[in-house]
Amino acid sequence: MEYSVAVAGATGAVGQEMLKVLEQREFPLKSLKLLASERSKGKVLTFRGESCPVEVLDSGSFRDIDIALFSAGSSISREYREAVVSSGAVMIDNSSAFRMDDEVPLVVPEVNPDDAAEHRGVIANPNCSTIIMVVPLFPLYTQIGIRRVHCCTYQAASGAGARVMQELKEETEAVLKGEEYTNTIIPFQYAFNLFPHNSEMGEDGYCEEERKMILETRKIFHNDNVLVNATCVRVPVLRAHSEAVNIEFERKTSVEEIYDILKQAPGVEIREDRDKNRWAMPADISGEYPVAVGRVRKDVSQDNTFDLWVVGDQLLKGAALNAIQIAELVAEKGISR
Amino acid sequence: MEYSVAVAGATGAVGQEMLKVLEQREFPLKSLKLLASERSKGKVLTFRGESCPVEVLDSGSFRDIDIALFSAGSSISREYREAVVSSGAVMIDNSSAFRMDDEVPLVVPEVNPDDAAEHRGVIANPNCSTIIMVVPLFPLYTQIGIRRVHCCTYQAASGAGARVMQELKEETEAVLKGEEYTNTIIPFQYAFNLFPHNSEMGEDGYCEEERKMILETRKIFHNDNVLVNATCVRVPVLRAHSEAVNIEFERKTSVEEIYDILKQAPGVEIREDRDKNRWAMPADISGEYPVAVGRVRKDVSQDNTFDLWVVGDQLLKGAALNAIQIAELVAEKGISR
Repeated sequence: MEYSVAVAGATGAVGQEMLKVLEQREFPLKSLKLLASERSKGKVLTFRGESCPVEVLDSGSFRDIDIALFSAGSSISREYREAVVSSGAVMIDNSSAFRMDDEVPLVVPEVNPDDAAEHRGVIANPNCSTIIMVVPLFPLYTQIGIRRVHCCTYQAASGAGARVMQELKEETEAVLKGEEYTNTIIPFQYAFNLFPHNSEMGEDGYCEEERKMILETRKIFHNDNVLVNATCVRVPVLRAHSEAVNIEFERKTSVEEIYDILKQAPGVEIREDRDKNRWAMPADISGEYPVAVGRVRKDVSQDNTFDLWVVGDQLLKGAALNAIQIAELVAEKGISR
Repeated sequence: MEYSVAVAGATGAVGQEMLKVLEQREFPLKSLKLLASERSKGKVLTFRGESCPVEVLDSGSFRDIDIALFSAGSSISREYREAVVSSGAVMIDNSSAFRMDDEVPLVVPEVNPDDAAEHRGVIANPNCSTIIMVVPLFPLYTQIGIRRVHCCTYQAASGAGARVMQELKEETEAVLKGEEYTNTIIPFQYAFNLFPHNSEMGEDGYCEEERKMILETRKIFHNDNVLVNATCVRVPVLRAHSEAVNIEFERKTSVEEIYDILKQAPGVEIREDRDKNRWAMPADISGEYPVAVGRVRKDVSQDNTFDLWVVGDQLLKGAALNAIQIAELVAEKGISR
């Protein structure tokens, strides 16, 4: 069985990675349609060695499409949901538009693959920081039990899009030359700087990114009582997110038990060289599929509590790869609704 | 009363800042002697508009010196301790050599100024990440009571010295040009990358930097039961450290009470513009004296627990400024032993 796939937002940072992942994983494609806004009209991308023109996204784009991968922002996803669904295609949406919608499954294939089958036309891809955290967290949650998680993120520019990655590079070049630079997207210096995540701030002092990590984890784990706290920070790294995760377990455990569980965990790779004091870093993990973990240690300040270091490619497992894995689930299960 | 001061390590990143702080704060100087290794022989620095030659450090350097500021690494501090003390001078040491020595006070002037009077010739300057954390933490500790602190750091290159700052800039330039670059100090890519702090790793999985934050906080607070956990990470920022601090208090408190205490706290400045979603950032705080704090919020995952965002200039409050403040305490109290 082969599928006709459309990628909406094909020229964006995540869209580009979706195409690479479709190539690498040899997704069973009948046809591929690349969609983007007017701004990308006339662009031609290469896929499996062939030129592929970018078409302008409109409500007629989804006739004959089986799976529509969306990564063009929440408002575009909202605008085209009805067009996709009524055409009979399944929308796999990388935006935050429908993640907390009760009718929309929120899927990390290593964690809750069966939820994908419950879709009514739309499946949501979780937030990148959430995905990267829950892939190693879930097997610990099911096998040991978790009382509370506190996560500090070190998030790359890629999460804010290709233009912010470009702006970071240009601004860094200007700073090194001692030249003035006027930021157009991030409203302050980003080169050699960092800042608490600039998503919308709530009354309670949490920003949207932190709220996503808290609420999406509950939805993915099917447990509204999972206690998660997050502090999200954007650092001047290009494309992989790092997370310092402090986990209070429900029972006594050990560094050894945690490593044993993580070694077996799907989508997880232990990456460390303890003797050389080397741990996973964004520069190592950029371009890789697995979520890299290591530096497991017993927290000296609290019983049953351990620290874990986690690094994942934001554009891949945090976005494009997870979406294609969902598409693979849809393909395996058939797409009828 | 005026003092003859020597600065050992005058050409280093911290030494340079010590000279600036001595100038800015109009320290009562009788004379100033700049000391460094053979490598800096012949260098001439400017102080208060006058040329000041750098002398080669040797055991005879401390005759007629009242206060010797050391920032030339632990082994140099160990080598010259006896020479300084036997000459009658007070050593204020920025290295980690004597910090946990029972005979050596470990002083943050906003926290434990009285400890300085207990010196027997040596006063230690705490680790930079520790200082930046304890300045806002201490008034919360005394006025509310703290059960446990978990801190994740976002540490700048400056903590590793001037040569690492230079290496970060050079490597970043090379990466932007797509050129090869061979790191000579940090043994892997640092440009657009980050890594768990590369200080020596202990059997328990904590690195030396994390251990310092835990043990030094206890010594400074005179309380071996203070529960601290830390995860230290080096980020590609030039000179200010940021810290995400999660604090479990001993009793019920509120965001308002915490702000009220921090507003009164010596050495602390509230830096935020909540309406604009702007919080303290390294680029803002570089070159500034106070520890900037803000983004106080109630942790939704645990009772009596709050998050705090802290940024301080590693070279100033984290090192040079704190050392000069100690010198000022010594000057106020007289230097006799």
